[in-house]
Parts: sequence; C-alpha cells; structure tokens
Amino acid sequence: MRGEKGYQAGRVGRLIGASLGPGDPGWITRAAWDALENSPCWAWPVSRKNLEGYALAIAKRAGLQPPEGSLALDFPMVRDPARLASSWQAAAEAVIPRLRGGEDVAFLVEGDASFFATFGYLAQYVRALDPSIEIEVIPGVSSPNASAALAGIPLAEGEGSLAIHAAPSAVARLDQLLEMFQTVVLLKVRPVLDELIALLEQRALLERAIFVERVGAPEQRVVTDVSTLRGERVHYLSLLIIRSHPAQ
Amino acid sequence: MRGEKGYQAGRVGRLIGASLGPGDPGWITRAAWDALENSPCWAWPVSRKNLEGYALAIAKRAGLQPPEGSLALDFPMVRDPARLASSWQAAAEAVIPRLRGGEDVAFLVEGDASFFATFGYLAQYVRALDPSIEIEVIPGVSSPNASAALAGIPLAEGEGSLAIHAAPSAVARLDQLLEMFQTVVLLKVRPVLDELIALLEQRALLERAIFVERVGAPEQRVVTDVSTLRGERVHYLSLLIIRSHPAQ
Repeated sequence: MRGEKGYQAGRVGRLIGASLGPGDPGWITRAAWDALENSPCWAWPVSRKNLEGYALAIAKRAGLQPPEGSLALDFPMVRDPARLASSWQAAAEAVIPRLRGGEDVAFLVEGDASFFATFGYLAQYVRALDPSIEIEVIPGVSSPNASAALAGIPLAEGEGSLAIHAAPSAVARLDQLLEMFQTVVLLKVRPVLDELIALLEQRALLERAIFVERVGAPEQRVVTDVSTLRGERVHYLSLLIIRSHPAQ
Repeated sequence: MRGEKGYQAGRVGRLIGASLGPGDPGWITRAAWDALENSPCWAWPVSRKNLEGYALAIAKRAGLQPPEGSLALDFPMVRDPARLASSWQAAAEAVIPRLRGGEDVAFLVEGDASFFATFGYLAQYVRALDPSIEIEVIPGVSSPNASAALAGIPLAEGEGSLAIHAAPSAVARLDQLLEMFQTVVLLKVRPVLDELIALLEQRALLERAIFVERVGAPEQRVVTDVSTLRGERVHYLSLLIIRSHPAQ
C-alpha cells in the first residue's frame, strides 16, 4: 500500500506526527500503524548520542522498515536556543520539499506528540515556512501511563489529581507538589536523582515512589526500592511516580 | 483465533485491563486489539444512564463484537462509597468464575486504565478475593493527549509541567495551578463550567483555554471560544486545556 495512499499528484502532502508510544511496539495505535504503512516518507529525530534514534527503533521492533529516501533529522540534545532553532529550521527545510512533492511525511514520535516531544517545534517551523501544509497529530500512549500500567498502580482516581513535571525544575517545589497532588510524576530524573532520593527519604515517602527507566524498551527497568539507585547514572528516559496521596 | 489463545485448560485466566483510548477506534493500540481478539470473554462497565457503555461502543466502532457470554458490569455513576464498594465486589464476583475456568477476561477501558479509570478498583477487588489471579494492564491513549493532538497544541514541552485535575476540586486552587504549571487540564468540568469561565475571564485567560467534549467519539466537539459555552449543560466527558505559560 505504501506510496499509493500517501501520494497524490498535484496535492501537497500532510505532515503527520505519528506517536508510537514510549517503547513497546504493542503500544503503537492502529492509526499510527496505518500512517507508517501508508506514508511514502518517514522522518525521525537522531542525535549524536543516538544515531539510530529512539523512535525509529520502536518502529523497527514492530517489524517495520523506513521507506527508501526517508529522513533522519538532526535534533541535538542541547539547551542552547540558537542551536535548537537552527536544527528545527533545517529539519523543516528538509521535509518541506517532500510535502510539496505530494508525499505524506510521517514524523516518528517516541511517546505522545503533545507530551514533552519535539514534534511541536517541527510543526511550528514547517507552518512558518508554509502555512498551507496540513499537519495532523496522531496521539499516543505516554510514558507515565505506560509506567503505571507496568507497575500496576493508578496515576489518578476519582476526584484526584496528577502533576507531571520535569524533575530538575520540580526539586525546589517538591513539597508543594506532594501536598497538592494525589500523584506526582517526575520526568528526566537523571541529573537530580540522588537529591530526589534524599528529599523523599526525609519525608518518609521513599516507599511510595517507583522508578521506571526506558518503559517498553527491551532494556526497561522498574525499581520499587528506589533507595538502591543512589549514586547510579540512570538513562535519560527515566521517571519517578510518587503516590503522595493514594485514594482509599 | 478467539477462544484458542485466550483459553487453556487447567490454568487460571488473566484479567486484562484493555485500554481502548478515549473514543476514536484508530487510537486502540495493537496490544489492546490483540487482547480483544484473543480473549474469550469481555467485560465492560455500564450504568443506568449508559446501558451500552462508552468503552464497548469504542470496540464496536472498531468493528469488533463481544464474544458470546461476555459480561456487562454495573458500575453506577454515584459517589456513595458503600454503593460503589458493593458494585465492585459484585463485578469481581462475576469475572472470577470465568478466570478460574481458564478464560482470559478483557475488561474494556475508555481511555487509559491507570488514568481516572475504574479498572483499578475492579483489579483491587479481584485481587482481594483471589490473589493468585494474574492481572495485566495494557496502557492506552488518555483524553488530554488526544484532545491536545486534535487541537494542535502541546500539553507540555522542554522543562515544563502539566497539572491534570478533576475540575470540581480544582476551582479553589485554580490560581495556584495556573501560576505553577505550563498547562492545566481540568477534567469533568460539567458541574463547574460556568464558574471556570468566569474565573478565566477575570484573569484574561479565556483565549488560552480550549474545551474538548467526547474526544474521538462521533459527537466530539472542540470549542476554542470557551465563552460561548456559558449556561450550557455539556457532556460528562469534557475537559478544558488551559495553556497558562506556553513555552516560547
């Protein structure tokens, strides 16, 4: 089917944010699967540290291969706004000729495209360069939901509440988060993990915390005794779920 | 395949929380699809107001039909803890004979099983009655992610943060939520929608709010001018996304 449905002479292709879920190929939705099968061009983010790209690896684990001529786009894992802006600009410039040529481009997203993902930036730059291009987002399973499923715990129930926060900026307001929310999920914990373990221990909350790394990937790890992680350099894709006020 | 893979003489069946996403059958994951196809028994929640059940309707929209002898379980939409407890107990007692008979039971979940869902309660009651029963949770797309995809906005980016809160209990702390989080998602807004519109208007945040009702269902509605909803009785499954501090 590929290359037939996704291509039509005379029309402009769609840019599709195809959320693949956080790792397990079983978590790919039927809609994302169709987008992968029917788009004559894929694009996916790579970085110097991860030349294959985490999102492409998910598709490959599902048994799919990128169509010939697909695009590996350089998304460096840096914070420098100027470098980021120039890589998004370059990525947008790389996909636009394919879209203008009438091909749908499926951009592979690890997790969910609206949730701490780079797809939003790409879409913004594409829209700025060519507002006529249609952009579609296919939602996906996000890492907190997958991690909770794996750990067999709810994220929130009833009249409850859930905070999801990048860990480095959460440290200074951790008490407030723990007081206000039924569950607190901290993402990207690596740079502050030891600090978080100490803070949770002081508050006697360590046993209410669960650590999950690379959920759904072959290297996935769930750690219920979080104190054992002290001093360890964990993977970038790792999170803590803290059930501060579990429902009865 | 159904009834072969999912049944094995002499073993106890698994209770599977099959998250179907919030409405669009394309948002069903491949793993949930397999669970539906291979489980000889389905179970799904119904209430007096929704006799068919929202979750079953999603599976039917996907073209699937429940296996004969499947179980519609009464989950009344009430807050009375005693009535809730007795319905979960009855639900657990209804599925256990099937599990003990060696059948896998797929419990159909609207949205994601760990996210404001009733599956956790059912699992708890089943576990209490028979700790030997294996429980598996298949994660799914949740309504905030699907709503953001549809609206073409991110929920959170970069070092950002996201609060998800049942709306009635959020009203009293709305300022704090809006101040602390990049994005605030309020669920179950119906009983407090007028109040929320007034509060957002006073804070000049109305144009940063988007209303989404029954995302993914045929009756789905996205309203960007939220003020037009004043005085309207919206559906139970409706939410507001407020981008209080959108990233640059």
